[in-house]
Amino acid sequence: MADGSPELPVAFADVAAAADRLRGIAVETPLLESDALNALAGGRLLVKAEPLQRTGSFKFRGAYNALATLRPPAVVAYSSGNHAQGVALAARLLGIPATIVMPADAPKIKLEGTRALGAEVVTYERDREDREAIGAAIAERTGAVLIRPYDDPLIMAGQGTVGLELAEQAARRGCRLDAALVCCGGGGLIAGCATALRHLVPEMAVHAVEPAAYDDTARSLTAGRREANRPGARSFCDALLAPMPGELTFAVNRRLLAGGLTVSDAEVAHAMRLAFRHLKVVVEPGGAVALAAALAGRVETRGRTIGIVLSGGNVDPALFVDVLAGHR
Amino acid sequence: MADGSPELPVAFADVAAAADRLRGIAVETPLLESDALNALAGGRLLVKAEPLQRTGSFKFRGAYNALATLRPPAVVAYSSGNHAQGVALAARLLGIPATIVMPADAPKIKLEGTRALGAEVVTYERDREDREAIGAAIAERTGAVLIRPYDDPLIMAGQGTVGLELAEQAARRGCRLDAALVCCGGGGLIAGCATALRHLVPEMAVHAVEPAAYDDTARSLTAGRREANRPGARSFCDALLAPMPGELTFAVNRRLLAGGLTVSDAEVAHAMRLAFRHLKVVVEPGGAVALAAALAGRVETRGRTIGIVLSGGNVDPALFVDVLAGHR
Repeated sequence: MADGSPELPVAFADVAAAADRLRGIAVETPLLESDALNALAGGRLLVKAEPLQRTGSFKFRGAYNALATLRPPAVVAYSSGNHAQGVALAARLLGIPATIVMPADAPKIKLEGTRALGAEVVTYERDREDREAIGAAIAERTGAVLIRPYDDPLIMAGQGTVGLELAEQAARRGCRLDAALVCCGGGGLIAGCATALRHLVPEMAVHAVEPAAYDDTARSLTAGRREANRPGARSFCDALLAPMPGELTFAVNRRLLAGGLTVSDAEVAHAMRLAFRHLKVVVEPGGAVALAAALAGRVETRGRTIGIVLSGGNVDPALFVDVLAGHR
Repeated sequence: MADGSPELPVAFADVAAAADRLRGIAVETPLLESDALNALAGGRLLVKAEPLQRTGSFKFRGAYNALATLRPPAVVAYSSGNHAQGVALAARLLGIPATIVMPADAPKIKLEGTRALGAEVVTYERDREDREAIGAAIAERTGAVLIRPYDDPLIMAGQGTVGLELAEQAARRGCRLDAALVCCGGGGLIAGCATALRHLVPEMAVHAVEPAAYDDTARSLTAGRREANRPGARSFCDALLAPMPGELTFAVNRRLLAGGLTVSDAEVAHAMRLAFRHLKVVVEPGGAVALAAALAGRVETRGRTIGIVLSGGNVDPALFVDVLAGHR
């Protein structure tokens, strides 16, 4: 097994245990397939639709797995928005008070969604303040447990259930996956997914996909050590703007990934439009990078079966209008 | 059983046979549920997402059921767009040449989608020409079999698999359906759905939902006989503009339905926006009327479990932009 090394911070058994915890709580999201997209790709694209997950992204999986395991008296988290909503809903379901630290410029749909789930939201300025420090200070002051957005074995294991379901659903469809494309910010989703996918289909290639300006994982995989993004980098993929790979996630990813791919914001917008037209799913920018990579030919798709994770759909209507109108 | 009368043109066994034919061919679309929409409704809304069906609407089900049963040498159909694409894909899968008669002002996404599936498209002027006559003339000239969009037992049976899946998926979730809301143009979808739903859950109420200007089925159910829509009526629900209930569909619907509800175009646009925000699914106007009726309180939702069919998602980006921007 590719993930059999005991020293990795997450193993297949952890993902399987998370799947047990999430059964009947998280949605087993559908694996979508479009005749039109398959024709464009010249192969089969099996698209895991996490916008259809509770809170509109995969982040609920890891958050619930962590909170249901730890059962802390209170929780604090920092997040650009999807982890925020995931933690807020998981905490509400488990009766745990939640405080979430979010950038003041996060998409409105994410700020409002988090508040609507009953969490206390504390905002900060993305360029001037350190969200980790703010979160840690709140944790120290209130006794709440800090749930990190990606660099945590329970979070990785929970997110890995996306990959577990993808492999199982593809197998039920009689498909053998040649490769999978998964978006990458801090690397928690892909670390968990690669753990599950390469356990179940050891020979498949799992590729990280990032916005071109936030290619820290691609460069880190090449360099063999964690490299940071350039200060002041810009992308409209708000969900993927982590400063550098996580320590624990990178330990997994350097072992299990085939490498990193990048896409431009324009390629992401194109993928969002094709998801609208052919899949009928609302995908946020950060959630569409993997589909963008497939459609832009970053990997060979002809005659192959490629698993693609759409990670979330929390996009403000105004931005979606811009994308549909071709202004992005 | 509510549908046990032998004289109805479609029975539960026909729907079950269609489900067998469609297995592995049509998508078993997911039953979506949103914490936020449930909170708005004060109950549970179980949302059957047919935009995720092949060709982007439920129409593929009936078309494939009819063509796989009849296996004609060639097929002709008339349609405002979703039946067109359903017939075109079913014909292509079965190797049958298809000609489709469509209004010249059909949404571009539907015209292009039908052509992309390899069908020959013949356009006509909605206000001046009779699509049924055009379709019949082509059938006579070419020997093709005409597949009507709704007034056909095989079509009703195929569309009824939506209701069959809805009942089965709700039961697997441990839910007892109190009522179902289904959109209604010619009445084929709801006739099939009511046949399946009231066989499996005899005590539940199935309501037809129509645009306010196209309330022919609501009025016909009240009058006990088929009544037509007013000439020149307007609605942006392009999928639901049939002139009057079908003869066969109405025979089923007058027996099985609890009645008809209507919604305004503004209520439909609101439902499309909430589906975007909370379900992350692209819904076309005609596909959103049932959700609109639930959100507008046309039936009691508090403390109840309501099945809702979203019938399709083939909407032009420009119209969707208008809706998201609040211009509808």
